Amino acid sequence: MQTKKLKIIPLGGLGEFGMNCLALRWEDDIIVIDAGLMFPESELLGVDIVVPDITYLIENKEHVRAILLTHGHEDHIGGLPWILSEIKVPVYATEFTLAYVEGKLEEHHLLDDTELVEITPKQKFSIGPFTIEPIRVTHSLVDCVALAIDTPVGVVIHTGDFKIDLSPLDDKPFDLHTFAEYGKRGVLALLQDSTNVERTGYTPSERSVRPRLDEIFSRATKKLFFSCFSSSIYRIRIALELARDHGRKVAIVGRSMMESTEIAQDLGYIDVPPGLIINPGHMRDFTPDQLMVLISGTQGEPMSALSRAAVDNHRHAHIDAGDTVVLSSRVIPGNEKSIFRVIDHLYRRDAKVVYDDGTNGLIHVSGHGSQDEMRLLINLVRPKFFVPVHGDYRYLRKHAQIATDTGAIGEAIVIEDGDVLELDKSTAHKGEKVTAGRVLIDSGSSIDVVEDLVIRDRRILSEDGIVLAVLAINKRTGKVERSPEVVMRGFGGADITDEARELVLKTLDGLNGEQKTDYGMVKEKVRVELKRLIQKTTGRRPLIMPVILEI
Amino acid sequence: MQTKKLKIIPLGGLGEFGMNCLALRWEDDIIVIDAGLMFPESELLGVDIVVPDITYLIENKEHVRAILLTHGHEDHIGGLPWILSEIKVPVYATEFTLAYVEGKLEEHHLLDDTELVEITPKQKFSIGPFTIEPIRVTHSLVDCVALAIDTPVGVVIHTGDFKIDLSPLDDKPFDLHTFAEYGKRGVLALLQDSTNVERTGYTPSERSVRPRLDEIFSRATKKLFFSCFSSSIYRIRIALELARDHGRKVAIVGRSMMESTEIAQDLGYIDVPPGLIINPGHMRDFTPDQLMVLISGTQGEPMSALSRAAVDNHRHAHIDAGDTVVLSSRVIPGNEKSIFRVIDHLYRRDAKVVYDDGTNGLIHVSGHGSQDEMRLLINLVRPKFFVPVHGDYRYLRKHAQIATDTGAIGEAIVIEDGDVLELDKSTAHKGEKVTAGRVLIDSGSSIDVVEDLVIRDRRILSEDGIVLAVLAINKRTGKVERSPEVVMRGFGGADITDEARELVLKTLDGLNGEQKTDYGMVKEKVRVELKRLIQKTTGRRPLIMPVILEI
Repeated sequence: MQTKKLKIIPLGGLGEFGMNCLALRWEDDIIVIDAGLMFPESELLGVDIVVPDITYLIENKEHVRAILLTHGHEDHIGGLPWILSEIKVPVYATEFTLAYVEGKLEEHHLLDDTELVEITPKQKFSIGPFTIEPIRVTHSLVDCVALAIDTPVGVVIHTGDFKIDLSPLDDKPFDLHTFAEYGKRGVLALLQDSTNVERTGYTPSERSVRPRLDEIFSRATKKLFFSCFSSSIYRIRIALELARDHGRKVAIVGRSMMESTEIAQDLGYIDVPPGLIINPGHMRDFTPDQLMVLISGTQGEPMSALSRAAVDNHRHAHIDAGDTVVLSSRVIPGNEKSIFRVIDHLYRRDAKVVYDDGTNGLIHVSGHGSQDEMRLLINLVRPKFFVPVHGDYRYLRKHAQIATDTGAIGEAIVIEDGDVLELDKSTAHKGEKVTAGRVLIDSGSSIDVVEDLVIRDRRILSEDGIVLAVLAINKRTGKVERSPEVVMRGFGGADITDEARELVLKTLDGLNGEQKTDYGMVKEKVRVELKRLIQKTTGRRPLIMPVILEI
Repeated sequence: MQTKKLKIIPLGGLGEFGMNCLALRWEDDIIVIDAGLMFPESELLGVDIVVPDITYLIENKEHVRAILLTHGHEDHIGGLPWILSEIKVPVYATEFTLAYVEGKLEEHHLLDDTELVEITPKQKFSIGPFTIEPIRVTHSLVDCVALAIDTPVGVVIHTGDFKIDLSPLDDKPFDLHTFAEYGKRGVLALLQDSTNVERTGYTPSERSVRPRLDEIFSRATKKLFFSCFSSSIYRIRIALELARDHGRKVAIVGRSMMESTEIAQDLGYIDVPPGLIINPGHMRDFTPDQLMVLISGTQGEPMSALSRAAVDNHRHAHIDAGDTVVLSSRVIPGNEKSIFRVIDHLYRRDAKVVYDDGTNGLIHVSGHGSQDEMRLLINLVRPKFFVPVHGDYRYLRKHAQIATDTGAIGEAIVIEDGDVLELDKSTAHKGEKVTAGRVLIDSGSSIDVVEDLVIRDRRILSEDGIVLAVLAINKRTGKVERSPEVVMRGFGGADITDEARELVLKTLDGLNGEQKTDYGMVKEKVRVELKRLIQKTTGRRPLIMPVILEI
């Protein structure tokens, strides 16, 4: 007779960074931990986001009981609309995470149909055969939890994203005691974040950037632009405190930054004195040294507020000679070209640019624990089986090695998306694989994401046809050299092709000189305009891929 | 009356990394320093290399007297065939640099028509009104020089690429004395390499990687694969010495690695004991612990030997469980995806992979001086005017600031490609700009670069038409989901489109499972095959752009 097994089934995030999603199954009950997205590789033209293939969940629809979220970052919640449009299940998350989720579901008209359940650290709850205890962890975002899941064969702990911040800004400490308690009682499996496995030592506290940022505020003599990830609530809090201390009013520019600040303020994570925040339109009432602009766009996203300000194309944010621009963030690999393009534009405006180039002091810290934090948590939990999660294959392998070297675990097991790890009380082995993979989604455009993010499979989309707009741009003059080629497949006709060609020309004429040299922005503008035209005239939503030839 | 001016006219490398090229003009005499290429941004699909726009040189053809090369890296010599096909002038360089240049010109059938002049450190020579003294500098490549150019208004020193290696492996020291001598006599302008301006301190010696590499050799129990840039002659020398010391025979795999090693051996830069190097086909005669494979492909280039070996698709280089693979190189920004794809494949083969991830000790050092070396050279030379060269705009600005802070210069001036800096004995100002920019070149394919690198302007090329091959690949099965779309513009017909479509399918069928997941390789293969077909059947050489849709 075959004994019953607990199945751990990663569907995303094991073998790549992002789109974290993992199923836990006992007999006929499945719970899903996280539902993230990732951003596509440059090879995948015309694709906006990538989400996990959830064929396995769809095929087992009637057994899926819940989605549990560890925290509110896009790589953990961004795939929710996609999954919820296929499977109707309740979503469990902490208060702050739910606030992000609500906004996201509202955009996709899924909010009314979704049951949201608030969870709280140390308050256990049950779903089918699972009893779950959220454990508070620290990270770059607030209100993050690990999940301890008591199953019929033992406890499984999933860390979510974490660092062990021993002096957190919100005085909500990493709950070492509960991890220790589980470790004493015995843990079957620990699933731990591998993100920073290549970093030795210990990640500094979120608090540790304050002294250097304070110095930068002290030295700024004109306007100060402060940019960070909009979800970096701690960083925003520090920026607002420093603005107040240095007598600067704060204008918030960029939709994501405004939303994030509002949520954090509503839930008491940042405390804004009355009168500190001003309407961006009122900046002209103050002298430059009385202003801080909190602005989104650290990764050089073509349509972000900072990218537009850098080429002097933002209604409110004007960067003048002598202004200081702080990018309190890291350069995410793959984004170098876009980021440095923005920074070069800032230098050309004679701004003082402070970014994380290794010579500017500590202006950014990672939200993920380094090797010593990984070792510490392993030593506290002492699991029978250790399963690295979150990362490229080589990261999982390295993490497994680090765990083995601690001597505090039974066995480290490296699994990838689609593997099924079957466990009983004392053994673990890989079973037959399930479907896993990536699904590419084209939102049409990132700027009208609110009204327009229609999630659909690339398969469906490619049946709607494909539009290639090939632009030959003269590098010297910035002018389009010849009538742009617009190639349509799957639909179209001479009329619409001509109209599309003219529209592309008109769009390019509407750009200023600096914008024209920013190909990311050129492509985005062309894409948005073509999309509108084609949808209006044909009702179709083809894949639109602008291609630039520089001549 | 207008007095005569010396003109410094950067045509490439000031405002970007790569394609270094700078003209120096006195009245009717022009000399050109370096003639480099750069590799294109990912937005520029279908483009293989980028070279400077030399319209200015072509328009002043009769005044161009010579091209002087500081050293043999591609970003300093790679544009030579392009320039020499437009302007016939002698090329001046040191012995080793000339060896690289000869190979390159031979490939392009330009060798017979080009006058090559060997120069030697400390041996002055004159070209028109200029008297030039090459000064030995150290770098990651051998036989590199700076150029001190005596002009009617004073001495201009161009550093070329340099680090100040105080314990060089070839006992050919950085010539501090000559720089000091010029500094004492007075220098009008110093043009200095900005590459590492974001690094504090001092770059370690080329020698400093030896101890850690020695350790790695000591611990390797099976085959050892050693990869570095093929031009890193010092690194190759160290690898060969360690192989000898640890009783391993050396098989060299990869064309560039073989050529480079041959040149270095011929010119006495590496000393290979008889019997050390074996034919790759003879590896089977030795046990794994008796073998080192010197292999090219540190940047994950899709068709490189290492990339192919990583997916078990190389005739001679087979990577087995327990083998050690050392990547003694840096991860060039923009190449992360390709490099880490290769590394993940290596891990899946259960190889021990050692790369520069910050935790593996010193296995690679930069060839460019850090801030303290920049400061040291500025202090020795004490120029009236300081002009940063080589780098993005923000690098030039930072370098100017560092130079100013030394207090050892008169004035730092930031100029970009196309600017004209006019100098007399005591003043410098920017004159009217000249044409500058980038020219994109499609070599058709990187694997048949030898017989096939036809350099041509993108303008001409786009008149030859454009071919888009859109492949929809099922991520799960690795199979092409639907008949690939082949879109041709500017030529073609139903026949050839069908044939092209079938060829693409056939090409994809010929790939193994791991290759199919490597989109860089898939695209390259498809590109090469389509190119052959179209050239054979139509005699045209259109721009071919494979586009992958993952579904």
